[in-house]
Amino acid sequence: MTRSSALLTDRYELTMLTAALRDGTAHRRCVFELFARRLPGGRRFGVVAGIGRFLSLLRDFRFGEDELRFLRDERIVDEPTLAYLANYRFTGNIVGYREGELYFPGSPVLTVDGTFAEAVILETLALSVLNYDSAVATAAARMSIAAGNRPLAEMGSRRTGEQSAVAAARACYIAGFSATSNLEAGRTFGIPTMGTAAHAWTLLHEHEADAFRAQIDALGADTTLLIDTYDIARGVQTAVDVAGASLGGVRIDSGDLPLVAAQVRAQLDSLGATATKITVTSDLDEHAIAALAASPVDSYGVGTSVVTGAGSPTAGMVFKIVAREASNGSWVSVAKKSAAKATTGGRKTAFRTLNDSVATSELIAISPRFESATDAASTYDARALQVNLVSAGEIHPDHEGIRAVAAARAHHVTARAELPLSALALSRSDPALETVYVTLDETSGHQ
Amino acid sequence: MTRSSALLTDRYELTMLTAALRDGTAHRRCVFELFARRLPGGRRFGVVAGIGRFLSLLRDFRFGEDELRFLRDERIVDEPTLAYLANYRFTGNIVGYREGELYFPGSPVLTVDGTFAEAVILETLALSVLNYDSAVATAAARMSIAAGNRPLAEMGSRRTGEQSAVAAARACYIAGFSATSNLEAGRTFGIPTMGTAAHAWTLLHEHEADAFRAQIDALGADTTLLIDTYDIARGVQTAVDVAGASLGGVRIDSGDLPLVAAQVRAQLDSLGATATKITVTSDLDEHAIAALAASPVDSYGVGTSVVTGAGSPTAGMVFKIVAREASNGSWVSVAKKSAAKATTGGRKTAFRTLNDSVATSELIAISPRFESATDAASTYDARALQVNLVSAGEIHPDHEGIRAVAAARAHHVTARAELPLSALALSRSDPALETVYVTLDETSGHQ
Repeated sequence: MTRSSALLTDRYELTMLTAALRDGTAHRRCVFELFARRLPGGRRFGVVAGIGRFLSLLRDFRFGEDELRFLRDERIVDEPTLAYLANYRFTGNIVGYREGELYFPGSPVLTVDGTFAEAVILETLALSVLNYDSAVATAAARMSIAAGNRPLAEMGSRRTGEQSAVAAARACYIAGFSATSNLEAGRTFGIPTMGTAAHAWTLLHEHEADAFRAQIDALGADTTLLIDTYDIARGVQTAVDVAGASLGGVRIDSGDLPLVAAQVRAQLDSLGATATKITVTSDLDEHAIAALAASPVDSYGVGTSVVTGAGSPTAGMVFKIVAREASNGSWVSVAKKSAAKATTGGRKTAFRTLNDSVATSELIAISPRFESATDAASTYDARALQVNLVSAGEIHPDHEGIRAVAAARAHHVTARAELPLSALALSRSDPALETVYVTLDETSGHQ
Repeated sequence: MTRSSALLTDRYELTMLTAALRDGTAHRRCVFELFARRLPGGRRFGVVAGIGRFLSLLRDFRFGEDELRFLRDERIVDEPTLAYLANYRFTGNIVGYREGELYFPGSPVLTVDGTFAEAVILETLALSVLNYDSAVATAAARMSIAAGNRPLAEMGSRRTGEQSAVAAARACYIAGFSATSNLEAGRTFGIPTMGTAAHAWTLLHEHEADAFRAQIDALGADTTLLIDTYDIARGVQTAVDVAGASLGGVRIDSGDLPLVAAQVRAQLDSLGATATKITVTSDLDEHAIAALAASPVDSYGVGTSVVTGAGSPTAGMVFKIVAREASNGSWVSVAKKSAAKATTGGRKTAFRTLNDSVATSELIAISPRFESATDAASTYDARALQVNLVSAGEIHPDHEGIRAVAAARAHHVTARAELPLSALALSRSDPALETVYVTLDETSGHQ
């Protein structure tokens, strides 16, 4: 049996549900929107990740006996609420950005359309998944830009929670990394895995040469030897002595990398190991990778910085009610007004406007009816950004599972290719695209 | 059936295992140590968290059919390795710091003693858990110091991975928070949960007063009303109009908090609601909490900053081999030598030296034999920091589960009370205690 995801929820959602069932507002239709107010860290774009994971968790968002017992024993909700939760299943609609898509401030990354009761209790789960996965994917995309055509491997599992590690490997792969060290990510999401040896392997043996010989004996001469346990120059010499000039690769995990990479390359070449590749893995982030662009490095391994979002460990997205049915049955746009956290009410339909295949703006049409927005946008050269993820409670299988990861990775390449060149700079700046709101006359358009 | 934790592992650990089984080094006894080289973010102390979670995951670290099939299908290991993993169970010893204990650079937070094969494959799991949980606990402890006697609630689930959210709630509770919004943390670890309503609750209703009335009807007048959806002064007036002067509390989630809290307190008092409490929850970190010390605030809710480690989202701990059996059966201390990542070899026993109950140093005795270190330390006024967590593969139940969380929270209070006053400052500085290494003659001491 799959473990329920239903308690990955903030208590206030069930408190509101209790009060709403009591005053009759629980069954009002509402539209909730998940979006980012701003891009943290001066990023020029964000990368959506986590959609497929959220959909799988939504499938398991059911209150079974164990969950209900906890809520009853702790007096978190009353009996009518327990009865409601026992039968809970999301029956509404969710549209959202494709996984791998780019987003900007205000982009309606997810739009959840259902009764208040069924939508409000998804807030925490949706945000936890999208905020972490998108933070990592956004950092990963910047590293992928910095690395150019050189492959990047994610190896940061040890520097984030053990389950977040799996999500991070997935987000990195979507945003352009080519492999991960994390085996669970290989099993669950079909991501290629990699890895050869740690310093412990060398230290387990009396001599570095013994460790190298045993590794080659087990894995073949095309393995990658870690050559910096004692002295790098001696390590390179020993590696080639043991493996011969056909050694697959060496890994450098310390030192001043541009300098060391050049020295190692020269030494390998002088020993005839001209095809032996150099991987570097020491505390890399997008800036360190960019600084190695002219160095003879063949591939990068990135740990801490990517799994912690390279300085922005959460995407900071929020989940807000933007429209609801009034007591007379009409739709009302709603928004929080106070202070710096004001939101833009109304249901939103999003398009990326293009000029000669280069993105020019994030166009957001505000209208309670999706159709009228689509009509309006057809007058622009624009790409619709939202797809149906859940229809009347049914999850669209295209957006979930292993195949969805590959599709997201491919879509990210397409979406990134539309960006103007200025969006690829690593320095802190404003979002690369401006978000433009267009409010449509809510009485126009066909029903 | 519990899901196996065995693939929450970096591939290189299994690659090393393959090679070690082949060259006969797999069964050499080794000592691995988990420690931090430094305290990130200029912190003056670290807080150990995650020990109990690691022990539970260690219990589930077994390679079942599904795990073995993946490793075979992907050709990650060879057949002898699959056979070894099929019977894998950790049979060694683990000693470590109590959960809730403080740590400093070099503190041997965990020491894993077993064969190379059985110890090396625990690296990623141990680090993932300890690095995330300790990063959060360390941030939480600083907030708890800043908050003084005012209660702190953790409400950051939405800003970290959905499973990390549960771990974060647990780490915060251990480090001095009094409650969490996360229901799964309530169920799994027995942590008190809290929460009343979001802005969506007010926006669901035609009028703020309707929302307040319905909430009070469902939850009683001692509930906490969120009063900043539209206008704070009007929100306070409406709250007292609806609930009367016995209203339990109001929550403020936006604005310039010191100013707003003072205004709200004055308004509540003028309306006779002198016992109504004020909770603030807007983007708080330890510095914002400290800045509210003189404001009429009764409790704090902290989200993003604590679950992301308040600027240091990982504790940066590493897992290194420090000693191994030589081919002649004697013990050898081992350490990586190169560059900035050199480590201190040898098995370590740790003590906190005290003077009049105030901690004065982190004393680390290096000796292959625990007994000789304990003898040596008995000459100091010192508290032994390590406890037995796993003995010959058996997990000590005291350190796992719900009761272990309460014990860790209590131990943290004790350990923090020993710190010198300078350790409680929030500014960036050096560790509050110096780590002092004492190398014992490895031939002395009784066997």
